[in-house]
Amino acid sequence: MAEEYVIGVDLGGTRMRAALMDDDLAIRAREETLTHAENGFEANLDRMKNLILSVWPAGQTVEGIGVSIPGPTNPFTGVVELGTNLKGWAHIPLAELLSQEFGVPVYLGNDANVAALAEATRGAAAGYKHVIFITLSTGVGTGIIVDGRLLLGREGLAGEAGHIVINVDGDRVSTFEKEASGTALGRKARERVEAGARSLILSLAGGDAASITGKTVSEAAARGDALALELIHNLGFMAGLGVVSLLHVFNPEIIVFGGPVSGLGERLFGPMRAAIEQNCITPGYWNELVIALAGLGENVSLVGAGVLVLTHGGVESIARVKARLKAAAED
Amino acid sequence: MAEEYVIGVDLGGTRMRAALMDDDLAIRAREETLTHAENGFEANLDRMKNLILSVWPAGQTVEGIGVSIPGPTNPFTGVVELGTNLKGWAHIPLAELLSQEFGVPVYLGNDANVAALAEATRGAAAGYKHVIFITLSTGVGTGIIVDGRLLLGREGLAGEAGHIVINVDGDRVSTFEKEASGTALGRKARERVEAGARSLILSLAGGDAASITGKTVSEAAARGDALALELIHNLGFMAGLGVVSLLHVFNPEIIVFGGPVSGLGERLFGPMRAAIEQNCITPGYWNELVIALAGLGENVSLVGAGVLVLTHGGVESIARVKARLKAAAED
Repeated sequence: MAEEYVIGVDLGGTRMRAALMDDDLAIRAREETLTHAENGFEANLDRMKNLILSVWPAGQTVEGIGVSIPGPTNPFTGVVELGTNLKGWAHIPLAELLSQEFGVPVYLGNDANVAALAEATRGAAAGYKHVIFITLSTGVGTGIIVDGRLLLGREGLAGEAGHIVINVDGDRVSTFEKEASGTALGRKARERVEAGARSLILSLAGGDAASITGKTVSEAAARGDALALELIHNLGFMAGLGVVSLLHVFNPEIIVFGGPVSGLGERLFGPMRAAIEQNCITPGYWNELVIALAGLGENVSLVGAGVLVLTHGGVESIARVKARLKAAAED
Repeated sequence: MAEEYVIGVDLGGTRMRAALMDDDLAIRAREETLTHAENGFEANLDRMKNLILSVWPAGQTVEGIGVSIPGPTNPFTGVVELGTNLKGWAHIPLAELLSQEFGVPVYLGNDANVAALAEATRGAAAGYKHVIFITLSTGVGTGIIVDGRLLLGREGLAGEAGHIVINVDGDRVSTFEKEASGTALGRKARERVEAGARSLILSLAGGDAASITGKTVSEAAARGDALALELIHNLGFMAGLGVVSLLHVFNPEIIVFGGPVSGLGERLFGPMRAAIEQNCITPGYWNELVIALAGLGENVSLVGAGVLVLTHGGVESIARVKARLKAAAED
């Protein structure tokens, strides 16, 4: 049987990658180049087209191209609503532009949704049907799989659980992302240090409170700094409350965590589990729940972009993809 | 063509109802009796069997029986995990017990999920595929339809958005239900009155702060009482924040509100819309969102129990039911 290929593209704020994958989603060729975020849309579209050409298989059939986008994207119309940190990427009909160029179907997805598809197909959540993927990074990005299908909603804006409300103080409304991202960790540390708390954090930031980031806090925690450990504990607790909301809403089998903040390990996940066990209305929400770390590493967006093609933008069930991968493996 | 019938049962804490419906879900016969909640499970099972018999169509085929349960229920195993306010209803294999008795398939659903199915099939959300049903009553119950299918999760515990976290104060975690139910409205009024606030609320409660309920607050608001209006305004705002979380997660087309608290009208929905518009990350979440009141009234659970049968417990798409209803209408 003739092989079919898919191409995955991972558009990031600093670099873009493309991969040629076979029908088992194994990467056969991989190229990358810098994103010139400041040069606007047209220049980067040209770079993306050249990158795709550089992995195009000579004389072979390509089933489609999937693109992971850092920002809100409409998977039904193939329009990038807003490329985060990408100048000029607003209301861009990228699927149509690439499809005209290459003559194959093109599917878009935001990066968290794409990562969820990847992890649920070939990563830590392979074999599960009810999956929540959460990346704890600069922000909190999430992608949700309901009974084997990506949750998209009316216009593909679903699955943005980083923006669920978690705290209200008068008119000040705070969200999962504002409480549990790496940015939040840095901000909270700055506030405490500026209020006079003694901590290694300040010296690790070169004595400049304004330079404190989540990474500074992580480094201080590794050296046993009490304030850093307290802040990470609280971050884990708040992230746990975000998870509590998602458990009651989705009753998932597994939650997969990615992103650098997840690297904090048990200092984060211990208080997270405590928050979950203390605040779910029945143990049925967590007693068989699997909490896992993302398994695909730096290729997650490329593999997920491949899954975008196989699921037609996340609209079809990943069960179909898995069946096909299985059939391919048995050939 | 021979008609097929379904039977719907609505089990409530004070009464139970049963209806015989034709394949257009029109009610052909309807009976009700008191629930003797204190008499335990066995006595009420007998009452339920007799009630079902009282609407059974002589010499006709019944496709199945659906039962709306006031509490957590596993739709896959047909087990009632806990009947709220029903003594002895814990871990009851009700589907199996009724199926053995009547020789037809039996499907269970919790009352909010059943109401969501009903409203999405024949009520205010008929014709929509991405639906959130919220009942604001003693508690906050929700049922969620994702692309035409009821959201159930791993064990049918999904769709419990009343328990999403909305506020944290130290270790005190508060939820959508604790902030925006009728019980919450009464509690907040009691706290304010006990703290010395002057209001009609106290005299409407016969001078006894402990007797204040959500209904008392509603009555005081109807007479223009400032405290009652403020409390309802705040309730609407907090309910709006719960909705903000659900909009980012589901990107629905429509939210349907039921329950007595929804009867507060614009005093509630005005601040709710303000909270939504102020706190969504893009207007795309709300600018085409429909907010509607439930349309099926007191028959909602009976009709929804009928939909349970037609969707095999909510597992299959309501699109299938709608197609069938349409075909029936054209016969």
